[in-house]
Amino acid sequence: MADDFRQILETFPNQNPQRDYTIEIRCPEFTSVCPKTGQPDFGVLVIDYAPKDWLVESKSLKLFLQSFRNHGAFHEDCTVGVAKRIVDAIAPTWLRIGGYWNARGGMPIDVFWQTGPAPDGL
Amino acid sequence: MADDFRQILETFPNQNPQRDYTIEIRCPEFTSVCPKTGQPDFGVLVIDYAPKDWLVESKSLKLFLQSFRNHGAFHEDCTVGVAKRIVDAIAPTWLRIGGYWNARGGMPIDVFWQTGPAPDGL
Amino acid sequence: MADDFRQILETFPNQNPQRDYTIEIRCPEFTSVCPKTGQPDFGVLVIDYAPKDWLVESKSLKLFLQSFRNHGAFHEDCTVGVAKRIVDAIAPTWLRIGGYWNARGGMPIDVFWQTGPAPDGL
Amino acid sequence: MADDFRQILETFPNQNPQRDYTIEIRCPEFTSVCPKTGQPDFGVLVIDYAPKDWLVESKSLKLFLQSFRNHGAFHEDCTVGVAKRIVDAIAPTWLRIGGYWNARGGMPIDVFWQTGPAPDGL
Amino acid sequence: MADDFRQILETFPNQNPQRDYTIEIRCPEFTSVCPKTGQPDFGVLVIDYAPKDWLVESKSLKLFLQSFRNHGAFHEDCTVGVAKRIVDAIAPTWLRIGGYWNARGGMPIDVFWQTGPAPDGL
Amino acid sequence: MADDFRQILETFPNQNPQRDYTIEIRCPEFTSVCPKTGQPDFGVLVIDYAPKDWLVESKSLKLFLQSFRNHGAFHEDCTVGVAKRIVDAIAPTWLRIGGYWNARGGMPIDVFWQTGPAPDGL
Amino acid sequence: MADDFRQILETFPNQNPQRDYTIEIRCPEFTSVCPKTGQPDFGVLVIDYAPKDWLVESKSLKLFLQSFRNHGAFHEDCTVGVAKRIVDAIAPTWLRIGGYWNARGGMPIDVFWQTGPAPDGL
Amino acid sequence: MADDFRQILETFPNQNPQRDYTIEIRCPEFTSVCPKTGQPDFGVLVIDYAPKDWLVESKSLKLFLQSFRNHGAFHEDCTVGVAKRIVDAIAPTWLRIGGYWNARGGMPIDVFWQTGPAPDGL
Amino acid sequence: MADDFRQILETFPNQNPQRDYTIEIRCPEFTSVCPKTGQPDFGVLVIDYAPKDWLVESKSLKLFLQSFRNHGAFHEDCTVGVAKRIVDAIAPTWLRIGGYWNARGGMPIDVFWQTGPAPDGL
Amino acid sequence: MADDFRQILETFPNQNPQRDYTIEIRCPEFTSVCPKTGQPDFGVLVIDYAPKDWLVESKSLKLFLQSFRNHGAFHEDCTVGVAKRIVDAIAPTWLRIGGYWNARGGMPIDVFWQTGPAPDGL
Repeated sequence: MADDFRQILETFPNQNPQRDYTIEIRCPEFTSVCPKTGQPDFGVLVIDYAPKDWLVESKSLKLFLQSFRNHGAFHEDCTVGVAKRIVDAIAPTWLRIGGYWNARGGMPIDVFWQTGPAPDGL
Repeated sequence: MADDFRQILETFPNQNPQRDYTIEIRCPEFTSVCPKTGQPDFGVLVIDYAPKDWLVESKSLKLFLQSFRNHGAFHEDCTVGVAKRIVDAIAPTWLRIGGYWNARGGMPIDVFWQTGPAPDGL
Repeated sequence: MADDFRQILETFPNQNPQRDYTIEIRCPEFTSVCPKTGQPDFGVLVIDYAPKDWLVESKSLKLFLQSFRNHGAFHEDCTVGVAKRIVDAIAPTWLRIGGYWNARGGMPIDVFWQTGPAPDGL
Repeated sequence: MADDFRQILETFPNQNPQRDYTIEIRCPEFTSVCPKTGQPDFGVLVIDYAPKDWLVESKSLKLFLQSFRNHGAFHEDCTVGVAKRIVDAIAPTWLRIGGYWNARGGMPIDVFWQTGPAPDGL
Repeated sequence: MADDFRQILETFPNQNPQRDYTIEIRCPEFTSVCPKTGQPDFGVLVIDYAPKDWLVESKSLKLFLQSFRNHGAFHEDCTVGVAKRIVDAIAPTWLRIGGYWNARGGMPIDVFWQTGPAPDGL
Repeated sequence: MADDFRQILETFPNQNPQRDYTIEIRCPEFTSVCPKTGQPDFGVLVIDYAPKDWLVESKSLKLFLQSFRNHGAFHEDCTVGVAKRIVDAIAPTWLRIGGYWNARGGMPIDVFWQTGPAPDGL
Repeated sequence: MADDFRQILETFPNQNPQRDYTIEIRCPEFTSVCPKTGQPDFGVLVIDYAPKDWLVESKSLKLFLQSFRNHGAFHEDCTVGVAKRIVDAIAPTWLRIGGYWNARGGMPIDVFWQTGPAPDGL
Repeated sequence: MADDFRQILETFPNQNPQRDYTIEIRCPEFTSVCPKTGQPDFGVLVIDYAPKDWLVESKSLKLFLQSFRNHGAFHEDCTVGVAKRIVDAIAPTWLRIGGYWNARGGMPIDVFWQTGPAPDGL
Repeated sequence: MADDFRQILETFPNQNPQRDYTIEIRCPEFTSVCPKTGQPDFGVLVIDYAPKDWLVESKSLKLFLQSFRNHGAFHEDCTVGVAKRIVDAIAPTWLRIGGYWNARGGMPIDVFWQTGPAPDGL
Repeated sequence: MADDFRQILETFPNQNPQRDYTIEIRCPEFTSVCPKTGQPDFGVLVIDYAPKDWLVESKSLKLFLQSFRNHGAFHEDCTVGVAKRIVDAIAPTWLRIGGYWNARGGMPIDVFWQTGPAPDGL
């Protein structure tokens, strides 16, 4: 996924690095474009992560996700690609993404990826 | 289940083969015919899989499932049979199917099958 | 809508003709075929009526609705057509149909028709 | 509906006859037998009424409804018949019954009857 | 209903008497005692009113309703009785009470009373 | 539980014996009689099993469960007894029953039994 | 709202013009751009209409609505504007639109407009 | 309610003054302080209005409502007071407010006020 | 918790002692009194247990729980105390209690206790 | 997080120290201020803990949480900070906090932290 045109993801330092906590961000307004049909796709992205040294800055995450608005990508590739970019930016202990895509052809599709086993209790 | 008349399931290459992710497809409009009474059956199929080299192409999956429309098969046989065909087509690391069939005689029936233990977190 | 192939709708005499009551039948498993794309359509039909001399026999209604399974008709035409056939069969005081069709192109469509103003309280 | 075998419906005097109030009783455990197939039917009866001089005694209503357990009656006839018996017993200002019957052949059926227009606000 | 032992209902002046507004108070923790069986009854009271010169003070209403805790009264009588006491205390333009009583003998009972037609929009 | 009068449970051969799958049947219309009070009891039975050589035939299961309609049995005994009869008939790899009984005295009761640890993922 | 760039709305003749029926189309994936902030807006449009001579063709409606994707318009103006365009295209007996816009600043906003009083029963 | 300290409510001209439409704004994060106990109160305000010449600007509405954060006012007075201020600012054809306040003493309270009869269909 | 005044908990012999099953009883109408404020508390008790030689008799459990009606006890103490009494009466293999108490001061409190690890599958 | 101005958290002795039980407190009315924008934030805090020698006194917890009303803190810092203060006050065997914050920029954020692995069954 060539994505040089993507917005920069900003980060800020974890103020509780000695504590193992997790953060879940839901993005219910994600939209991109189907590379095959040119039709818009709509989905909900849910991102969970356990931070190490850095956290994702919320507003830059919003702008980053908005920059997919007119970009073409398949469901599977788009979901994994968003997660990969966040991992590159903050190098978390653990990250999981769930992409819940609206039905096309009557069949909704979800895509799940995580960097490794989830922390205890998640 | 003799199913030579079935539509071809098309596949496309996994673009993230080095990453362990899973895909869930829900098919809420599945219908077949009861081989005993000739009456239509209605169900929801939910398919989860962890791809290896290939993914299921969505539109061909829709056509494949539609080809059961006037075909006779019992709930248990039909659910397992659909899963088996997909396994044959894409040889996934893991696949699970849940068939949720509408009530007949006042009693809804669900059928579950998977190729082996589910990946961590599912 | 040429429908000579339709199943016969059977009726039976109203045993409480001197009382104004209404009957609602929900048919959550209706399916027909889109005449434009050849793809199956799925919907829920809800039929309310105030009987005069005749009631619809349930089993024949089920068979009548099943006979649309491989028949092509647009949502609007199909919904109004089903209602019209029932009106012809039982000549009720009042009848209303609601057809709730599953999304196509991401947009679910409902169609409503009634023979006249609804009875008090409906 | 010959129902000499029915339990007696007991009543007690309305202690607020000068006030127009209404009472709703839900009976979620009603069961009778289909006279055609001999199979049990299950439904929920909801009875609303505006009392005049008498109220229905709850326990006798429960026993009255239980006495349909092994009695054969069609949905429409059974629903209207229960209402008629209560009207005979307490002569209310107004009474409405709704019978919500579980699906048979995949199609749930509701039957509604009232003695006249509902009081303001119902 | 002899209720000399009831708590006093306190009131306070309506600060917007020139405006027609309404107030709804839900009391989900009402309990009294069945005068026939001595068993506790549980219900939810919902009170709507359009104030004239006075409003009900919330805390005194809570204490007033709590004073029914060990008092015996039938559902119908108790519901109408609570409403009547509030009407006596604040003389509202309009008041409606709904008493939603938990099932006894498998049958929940609701009781509704209002002083007259509801204001526009309620 | 003496149950000579029970309907015969019919079975049919498992067509996928080499695959470990499970089946869930929900019976939302179960009713029996309380042996203490003579009052009807209502419950929902949910049966999960992993078949070995035989499956339960649906229609005979319906008739078997209907044969408890006028039979007296306590909740605990009735739930475990139904399961035991199915185990005797099909000797499954695993079977679990859940009996969800409607409230009596304001308190709903559920009874759960299984033949051993549940298969992976259930 | 200058909208020359909008997609053409196609229509097709009403096949039941002698019957008064209504059609509801829900468009849960509408998105446009806030003209003030440049941020995307998301909403659900619900359109009800009673057709006269023409119906809206579904696919062209989808394309018409998609053409707002990168267009700037305030909630109120956008909702009324969509409705106005459909009215111009099919001249219905009656049309109502509801625009349910996702929260901005923590406050969701809905906009409703209709061409006149709704038909009986809607 | 002395409220000189309140934020200014900004307005902007209605761009469709010749059309009768309505707008609903939900404010699920309203909080003020109980003047009696000094404890915070939480509620949801729902405002519907039919604009004449002016609309409420969303951001200034948010700031206006936030300015009640540390202000003391009873539920009834606060709800009606908010509505009155908006009416003063935009002089709408019609306005209705509903204030849904979280339970205090176990009893949630709602307050409703409107300037006159609601438009057709609301 | 001095509770000599409590009702006796009756028991009856387990008729399936050789089978490991569990029983869940929900008591949605529990009420006691706050020892600090004298105000009534309301909660839902959910009791799960695996019986050994004895089962709890339902009616005596209802009376036992009702005997807390005018008794003062804190949430934590009351929940654990009820469980302890049942354990003393039937010496089960395992028992768990959940006490879900209605909000006081806007904050609902739940209390959970079990005698040891839960059986497989619970 | 400098929080000298915070209210004191009061505690009281655990009356069942020899029993391993857990307590869950939900605080659905938490509000603080965003240190970046000065806008109010709203969230729900859910605190679970297994007490050792001390329990949190409910009223002091309410006042403690209210003291964040006009204090500025980021979501992550605020959630972990509240938990840390309670751990300092009661030194529990285990404590978990979940902070569910309302959407800002269309994206709700949750923060989870616990002192170690959860007790069996939670």
